[in-house]
Amino acid sequence: MSVITTKQCACKWVLRHQHKLKQVARACSLKVKEAFGFEEFRTYEQYDSEYSFRYQDLTTKLADPTQLRTKPEVSELKFGQIFTDHMLKVFYHKQLGGWQKPVIIPFENISLHPAAKVLHYAVELFEGLKSYRGVDGKVRIFRPDLNMQRMNLSAQRAGLPTFDGVEMIKCINRLIQVDQEWVPHSEGSSLYIRPTLIGIDGTLGVAQSESALLFTILCPVGNYFASGSDSVSLLADPSYTRAWPGGCGDRKMGSNYGPTIRVQTTASSKGRQQVLWLYGPDHQVTEVGTMNIFVFYIDENGDKVLATPPLNGLILPGVTRNSILQMTTEWKEFRIEERMFTMADIIKLLRTERLLEMFGSGTACIVSPISSIEYLGDLLHIPTIEHTNPLYKRIRDELFAIQYGHIEHPWAQVIE
Amino acid sequence: MSVITTKQCACKWVLRHQHKLKQVARACSLKVKEAFGFEEFRTYEQYDSEYSFRYQDLTTKLADPTQLRTKPEVSELKFGQIFTDHMLKVFYHKQLGGWQKPVIIPFENISLHPAAKVLHYAVELFEGLKSYRGVDGKVRIFRPDLNMQRMNLSAQRAGLPTFDGVEMIKCINRLIQVDQEWVPHSEGSSLYIRPTLIGIDGTLGVAQSESALLFTILCPVGNYFASGSDSVSLLADPSYTRAWPGGCGDRKMGSNYGPTIRVQTTASSKGRQQVLWLYGPDHQVTEVGTMNIFVFYIDENGDKVLATPPLNGLILPGVTRNSILQMTTEWKEFRIEERMFTMADIIKLLRTERLLEMFGSGTACIVSPISSIEYLGDLLHIPTIEHTNPLYKRIRDELFAIQYGHIEHPWAQVIE
Repeated sequence: MSVITTKQCACKWVLRHQHKLKQVARACSLKVKEAFGFEEFRTYEQYDSEYSFRYQDLTTKLADPTQLRTKPEVSELKFGQIFTDHMLKVFYHKQLGGWQKPVIIPFENISLHPAAKVLHYAVELFEGLKSYRGVDGKVRIFRPDLNMQRMNLSAQRAGLPTFDGVEMIKCINRLIQVDQEWVPHSEGSSLYIRPTLIGIDGTLGVAQSESALLFTILCPVGNYFASGSDSVSLLADPSYTRAWPGGCGDRKMGSNYGPTIRVQTTASSKGRQQVLWLYGPDHQVTEVGTMNIFVFYIDENGDKVLATPPLNGLILPGVTRNSILQMTTEWKEFRIEERMFTMADIIKLLRTERLLEMFGSGTACIVSPISSIEYLGDLLHIPTIEHTNPLYKRIRDELFAIQYGHIEHPWAQVIE
Repeated sequence: MSVITTKQCACKWVLRHQHKLKQVARACSLKVKEAFGFEEFRTYEQYDSEYSFRYQDLTTKLADPTQLRTKPEVSELKFGQIFTDHMLKVFYHKQLGGWQKPVIIPFENISLHPAAKVLHYAVELFEGLKSYRGVDGKVRIFRPDLNMQRMNLSAQRAGLPTFDGVEMIKCINRLIQVDQEWVPHSEGSSLYIRPTLIGIDGTLGVAQSESALLFTILCPVGNYFASGSDSVSLLADPSYTRAWPGGCGDRKMGSNYGPTIRVQTTASSKGRQQVLWLYGPDHQVTEVGTMNIFVFYIDENGDKVLATPPLNGLILPGVTRNSILQMTTEWKEFRIEERMFTMADIIKLLRTERLLEMFGSGTACIVSPISSIEYLGDLLHIPTIEHTNPLYKRIRDELFAIQYGHIEHPWAQVIE
């Protein structure tokens, strides 16, 4: 019997588990980068296509001038209806070593095998972020690192390949540069960015994807609040559930959205603009429509508190949510809490006149004030928009100021 | 003030609600047909493209002989890898009056707008059914009416257009006729049929689809049990949840499948072939992998019972599940129960040696015996395959006999 030393053991362990180690390295790559700085990190990581594609391999095929579309008036822009002239595409094929070279090409349809996993088993996820034309004419992108971090978490959950978020941001920035004339020249408007990752294997069977397509499309969007009152009325019906423990409500996967469409239709038919998603027998407040939710109230000691549900697995970790929490914490003007709220809590706050404001937060609207909630046959009136200097408006204004370059801030990164 | 009579009131109500009435008529169209018979029904329903497409409008464009693919050996067939030469496509465009004319065309890729709702929000659903070449050489399709009924329920839940299942079955049958040489000439093999419905609007935003594509592809599949032992070992981990009340676990929507892939990968890495999906703090047994689950046991009075979880919203209403319940009820040999089971119930039955068999049921495997369950660190041994004449085998044999035409039975409909 041969004696195995500790060192030999460790070597064998590394050899056996190197694939897992690689996965761990991938998962925390963004964190490592933050700690080391970009360039240092590069020397630590041997680049290979299994790990990520690279910006330096990006090629651009520009649309023929005759293919270029007319840009619409900003006032006519509806969300997600009109797209720019180009798109970004990166294929992943396990059998070809992993990630292929990224390409920017003229906007075109995607050709899929009819058995592609995305069409049958919802093997798909996406992100939503925006770039803005600032007061100085420069184009800024808002916190893309957080979107890429979340996109990689969604990819892991969906059994899709992960990638280096920094490389992806560089490719997206290049796409925006190519289509920069599509970034609206009007404050309140922006260029919406939709990175999407889909499983494209042309085989039936609920299984891990060996081929995937990462693509990004852009669409100019108008001012969300152009037309009059911007407050929303919600339907809170405990018979509908958006997410549940052991599911994937905290990941931006397509499967979280399809099932909500009929419920949203029901809300609309009742004259409510959005659904307030409840959870559990105690009717916990989780999210509103496709937004996170905030409650601004006065506690029993008379102190003001801004609260939002904690990231307990049911809540999408919103970039705007994160930004609002960070920003208001820095103000040091009132208490910030990540805590669970039930509908009974909301009603109690209303009855004791301690509920000041409720609002949703998300990339599309930034901040959306709530004026009423239909709940178990009652219409609860929320006084959000009735204050002189409401908090939701102050938050929105401050975020706008950062996004449109009125304030220089590290969250809004200039695309050179 | 004018006086409104009851009759006027009723008329107004009908005028206002006729769209809803139409939807109700659509939803129960299959039922109405059963009651009236097909031809009678036709005279009651004014056919329009908003309601359904029609088989009589179907056109067929055959593949060029040079395009036809070589048919593989039955022994080489893996599930969902190889497809036949043709496919069925039916577009729906609300702005063009609804359903367009169905077409059978050579098998080809599907071209989608990059913003198509199916790629972002999992606006998609599917069915799985099979046709078999019988001992008499005739091709039979198994209970397609149930699949079409379920597909329309899924479509309603997904906010996609519904259609007349009878017309769809006729179109599918025609597709099978065109590709009839692809129905394997070998007992145990079959032609798997995959009808799929996807939302294809090229606009971002979580909203009802105004354009959709209904398509069907076919793939020959080999004998599921060709290689040795066919029993499966399951991973039952209460930290994963497949479906929940207020969700859509009882509909065959893509969103039920994507989130399961990573869990299935975890099961495989632990040497378990499938996941046993539990629900709730009491660890209720719901489904196994993509199958329904059956438990055959002896109750406290010494009577044999075949039980499966009830259709409580968490359970997919399987066609094989339905067939097994109907078939064994007719046998009148033991009690049949649709009842909830917890893992504690299973363990109690095992301890008292009253658990005879556990098996999954589904279109792919028909019946799949379970030999063990890994649960909270223990491996529970299930004696399913150790009996001399196990029930699971008798059920499978009887279903095979119907499917391959050894017994003439209304469930297996000959495609002329």
